[in-house]
Amino acid sequence: MINVGVLGATGYAGIETVRLLSKHPEVKITRLVSHSFEGQKISDIYPNFKGVLDIECTGLDIDDIAANCDLVFTALPHGVSKEVIPSLFKKGLKIVDLSGDFRYNDAAVYEKWYGEPHPAPDVLAQSVYGLCEMYRDKIQKTNLVGNPGCYTTCSILALYPLLKAGVLKTDNIIIDAKSGVTGAGRTEKLDYSFSECTENMLAYKIATHRHTSEIEQELSIAAGEEVLVSFTPHLMPLKRGIYATCYANLAKDVTGEEIEKIYKDFYKDEFFIRIMPAGKIPESNWTAGSNFANIGFQIDKRLNRIVVCSTIDNLIKGAAGQAIQNMNIMMGFDEKAGLSMPGMYL
Amino acid sequence: MINVGVLGATGYAGIETVRLLSKHPEVKITRLVSHSFEGQKISDIYPNFKGVLDIECTGLDIDDIAANCDLVFTALPHGVSKEVIPSLFKKGLKIVDLSGDFRYNDAAVYEKWYGEPHPAPDVLAQSVYGLCEMYRDKIQKTNLVGNPGCYTTCSILALYPLLKAGVLKTDNIIIDAKSGVTGAGRTEKLDYSFSECTENMLAYKIATHRHTSEIEQELSIAAGEEVLVSFTPHLMPLKRGIYATCYANLAKDVTGEEIEKIYKDFYKDEFFIRIMPAGKIPESNWTAGSNFANIGFQIDKRLNRIVVCSTIDNLIKGAAGQAIQNMNIMMGFDEKAGLSMPGMYL
Amino acid sequence: MINVGVLGATGYAGIETVRLLSKHPEVKITRLVSHSFEGQKISDIYPNFKGVLDIECTGLDIDDIAANCDLVFTALPHGVSKEVIPSLFKKGLKIVDLSGDFRYNDAAVYEKWYGEPHPAPDVLAQSVYGLCEMYRDKIQKTNLVGNPGCYTTCSILALYPLLKAGVLKTDNIIIDAKSGVTGAGRTEKLDYSFSECTENMLAYKIATHRHTSEIEQELSIAAGEEVLVSFTPHLMPLKRGIYATCYANLAKDVTGEEIEKIYKDFYKDEFFIRIMPAGKIPESNWTAGSNFANIGFQIDKRLNRIVVCSTIDNLIKGAAGQAIQNMNIMMGFDEKAGLSMPGMYL
Amino acid sequence: MINVGVLGATGYAGIETVRLLSKHPEVKITRLVSHSFEGQKISDIYPNFKGVLDIECTGLDIDDIAANCDLVFTALPHGVSKEVIPSLFKKGLKIVDLSGDFRYNDAAVYEKWYGEPHPAPDVLAQSVYGLCEMYRDKIQKTNLVGNPGCYTTCSILALYPLLKAGVLKTDNIIIDAKSGVTGAGRTEKLDYSFSECTENMLAYKIATHRHTSEIEQELSIAAGEEVLVSFTPHLMPLKRGIYATCYANLAKDVTGEEIEKIYKDFYKDEFFIRIMPAGKIPESNWTAGSNFANIGFQIDKRLNRIVVCSTIDNLIKGAAGQAIQNMNIMMGFDEKAGLSMPGMYL
Repeated sequence: MINVGVLGATGYAGIETVRLLSKHPEVKITRLVSHSFEGQKISDIYPNFKGVLDIECTGLDIDDIAANCDLVFTALPHGVSKEVIPSLFKKGLKIVDLSGDFRYNDAAVYEKWYGEPHPAPDVLAQSVYGLCEMYRDKIQKTNLVGNPGCYTTCSILALYPLLKAGVLKTDNIIIDAKSGVTGAGRTEKLDYSFSECTENMLAYKIATHRHTSEIEQELSIAAGEEVLVSFTPHLMPLKRGIYATCYANLAKDVTGEEIEKIYKDFYKDEFFIRIMPAGKIPESNWTAGSNFANIGFQIDKRLNRIVVCSTIDNLIKGAAGQAIQNMNIMMGFDEKAGLSMPGMYL
Repeated sequence: MINVGVLGATGYAGIETVRLLSKHPEVKITRLVSHSFEGQKISDIYPNFKGVLDIECTGLDIDDIAANCDLVFTALPHGVSKEVIPSLFKKGLKIVDLSGDFRYNDAAVYEKWYGEPHPAPDVLAQSVYGLCEMYRDKIQKTNLVGNPGCYTTCSILALYPLLKAGVLKTDNIIIDAKSGVTGAGRTEKLDYSFSECTENMLAYKIATHRHTSEIEQELSIAAGEEVLVSFTPHLMPLKRGIYATCYANLAKDVTGEEIEKIYKDFYKDEFFIRIMPAGKIPESNWTAGSNFANIGFQIDKRLNRIVVCSTIDNLIKGAAGQAIQNMNIMMGFDEKAGLSMPGMYL
Repeated sequence: MINVGVLGATGYAGIETVRLLSKHPEVKITRLVSHSFEGQKISDIYPNFKGVLDIECTGLDIDDIAANCDLVFTALPHGVSKEVIPSLFKKGLKIVDLSGDFRYNDAAVYEKWYGEPHPAPDVLAQSVYGLCEMYRDKIQKTNLVGNPGCYTTCSILALYPLLKAGVLKTDNIIIDAKSGVTGAGRTEKLDYSFSECTENMLAYKIATHRHTSEIEQELSIAAGEEVLVSFTPHLMPLKRGIYATCYANLAKDVTGEEIEKIYKDFYKDEFFIRIMPAGKIPESNWTAGSNFANIGFQIDKRLNRIVVCSTIDNLIKGAAGQAIQNMNIMMGFDEKAGLSMPGMYL
Repeated sequence: MINVGVLGATGYAGIETVRLLSKHPEVKITRLVSHSFEGQKISDIYPNFKGVLDIECTGLDIDDIAANCDLVFTALPHGVSKEVIPSLFKKGLKIVDLSGDFRYNDAAVYEKWYGEPHPAPDVLAQSVYGLCEMYRDKIQKTNLVGNPGCYTTCSILALYPLLKAGVLKTDNIIIDAKSGVTGAGRTEKLDYSFSECTENMLAYKIATHRHTSEIEQELSIAAGEEVLVSFTPHLMPLKRGIYATCYANLAKDVTGEEIEKIYKDFYKDEFFIRIMPAGKIPESNWTAGSNFANIGFQIDKRLNRIVVCSTIDNLIKGAAGQAIQNMNIMMGFDEKAGLSMPGMYL
């Protein structure tokens, strides 16, 4: 049993972390930090918690957090995050950071895509990219995990094994990704109002979305060469779910069975990764409400191309769930602890 | 640890029961019975279960069920139910029945609202109405629970304490209830297709819905006199949730604090019932995904009337969750076992 | 052909007025006034208009409006409205005001429900309540119409004929109304964000919503005595539609056929009012996208009560459409001009 | 004024055609043919029509249709279509067929993708592919138009001008398309039920969807060489809209302004095609409810690739609207007649 805190507890990634932690068998929630709601009960802000978790939110106090938490999840706004995390890190706390700040191997990549120098390159150098299925060994040994983005997780899980196996050409990889609206977080922007979003679809940030850089970092590692991808995010009228449709040309003549075997070998002991047989395409509600990722694919023989469809719950495997999976690894808990529920389906 | 079966496992009430049971600490699922999907894995029908629960559905075989289950949940179509339950009951199995067949104290009421004689009045006489908060003592001792309907649960929980306390006039009670579409079950009817339901609202079965009779049975008990109600169900374009807006004239001059106290006294040890202070009105997503019921109210002094708003998840507290709560009571488990998750909110 | 302007053109009621006017055969849109978007093309703000209507929004300039418009629709925020309308009225313009300011026969009622003195009681005295089916004669002769609210229109149309005919008791009238989210207007409030609204239902402003006063004003006229009602608005997860479920005790023994006849006689030449036979209950998507109101009912003989279900599109018959219907009446145009499209259904 | 009939009037494409025709200034609807609803009023099946269009559906009678219609729209099931259309064609009627049967220049392509020989190759040879913006001249002169598919229209409009201009490489074209659920038509299949579709996303028929063949036929004409494409349809939880995200490598170094000019030159007199400036990406609700297509694009200089986003209303420009546009061309009416409404936006 460890003491954990959630900083930025009242945003959507934060509150989903709280929701999952509230039923985690190895965890006691000791601090929920919220600048906006200091002094209010979490169950007054999110009434679904009433009777389940009624603790009060506190303001941001590094010493108080350090004294009361063994590990913290940070889901803070960009500006706040960059000062808080180094401070906590220096105090020796274990940290799983849900922002984009500690996901890079190279501060220069951060600078290129975020348009500013990295705020703490020395701390970045000690962080581990928290894609659990790829970096479990490193995660076990670190105090700071940069939890991957939602689009990122869904895309990398889909393409990494095939690039590693050398069956894909690397020069025409296209990731067409669709997200539910909770991906935008708890926001008052008109663009995310019900009347503007429902019955609507759109692409956005084409060729410029920051998750592109994370995806390229990891796919390049998989391929052993620089991989650049077209990544196009879309907003879709539902709450939860990422659906990534990935296109790549085949480097060799492979069958569906061979592709399935590559995936199943690569993910052989991975509880949260579910591989479909060739031609069986997943739906986003198979994973919504769970920490699972589903991956299916279809080979287009006519074009010698593969289409891989990958789907996760953006708030769980794409944020809070993977963050807790990282905590489980860091602490030596059962990696599935608190995360083994099936999707809701309905 | 007991062995349980779910009969009619692939309907929506059935599969939600399976989903909740799959994480229940005291239960092993030994049989999933499905006429339509005999021989198929549950995780092939509902792929959200893949890796979590992969057992095969079996056909309906009373002896096999009796040999392998201590308790069964029955979520069967009307015609099938009436033969199966008496057979299982006679075998000595514990049964929680999610159909409408065993919810009545009086077979004549069943006959009036279902338009046919009760199929097993002798078994009906031994069943207990499974509204947990009202009949816990009887549920502990019975082998057959008639699990209440979704609209029913939401409505009775809202009005029972006030009628019991004598603060309501009984002659103008109106329950205007709204349900999500999963309430219609797994159905291919055009009326429940996406294109017909989304962006649509409608009332249906006005003055004739069968749940009226359940509500009246229980509210009459509460009031100590016959209570008749207007009950109007509506279909709303969302998946989960019942929202019952209940109107009644006040029999005496009471304050909001007094009403709140009546509720809180009545439900004082009830984990799943959450009473809001006067004027705080619940939203359906505070309970969706959970076994909670939220009840709020507003006194309209101008009209000497009270409006009570009650909300539950139709598939959980309105079906599968309450069924499991009934099992917990019947078996002497912690009543919250497997059911203490907060709502999803998002 | 007349010149019209829309003030507050970029709010939802405003832009719906613009959309309908853009295809109106008797109208030229000469001014779209928007404080927030002065100098921008309407088709840059609402890109659905590109190629259909590309005129620029102007700022609020009374003289400019008076010089260029024969009639204006005002859909202004509360504070602005109260100064603008008297100025325009004194210039002799015809005005259809979509705010709540000019809907009352008695300034004291306004003061009671809006919590402040009426800003222009002298102008109010010259305004006509724009419920077209009831006040056509007066509307023809006035220069200022207070266009009814959305909930209001739906509720009054449902109950007025029955109260007029004396078949309802007046002391237990309950109106349980459900609205789509566009009813909240173009707003950045978190409460109306997609992630908070979708898959959610709630009642709000119970016993205190301002539309109550409009409904009571008109139903009292119909009944020839003071009528007070319980009015409960609800927010539902769809864009367009009001659904009002109205309950009243019957004052006499009437049949469904008699009720149907009362309605059909009352609305006999009304193109936009569609009466269903007894027991046929309307759905909101039968009217969405149109200026029609559908009214259906069920007599509950057991309780000697009637349930009337009424549905309109809140943005059309509940706002922009009725406003244009009022213009048609004021100008002597065919009352159906620009408004005779059927609902979208899909 | 001509007499028109709609065969298969009660399917979704059929009823949308009826809806648009009901307000068309040059048309009298004389026959609505429906096998399932023979003898019923259209306004009893689709109550949104009550008071607007109340004519009765008739059964399929070729002579009756020929005697009473100058032009028919056929939206018939596959099996029925193949016998009916040749019969009507031989009677000399003008026909706009909404099925897939008369969209091909080559019966062999039909056979390859539909898995059976074309039922009437002689009639096919006399038909014209009804993509209005490309084949206006031929449409003017034919009696039989094969109205393009919804995905097809959206995709071809997006890519045709660029291929024609020679700025795209043809070997890596990918079309990732998303559709609302009305695209599945009026169907009772469980897959399209509300509870299965809402809050869900999925790809389907990857590499095998029949619309691929239509798209390739036309893009090959544009490019002057055989073009093969990856086409992936997805189902999204909304009613109306197609959103096609198209990827292609650039054959030369072009600027956004040059691309915009290519589009604007190509579509220079096209009312229904709206080109956005470089980097401005359309949303599906800008076209929903209208006959417009919106096309936007982003050049990805880093990858020397272009991403084109195209969106239409699947039921209007993707079916009924384009069918009426074809009729307008065939009959010499104003091409915009009955089709110039802006999108609904809300």
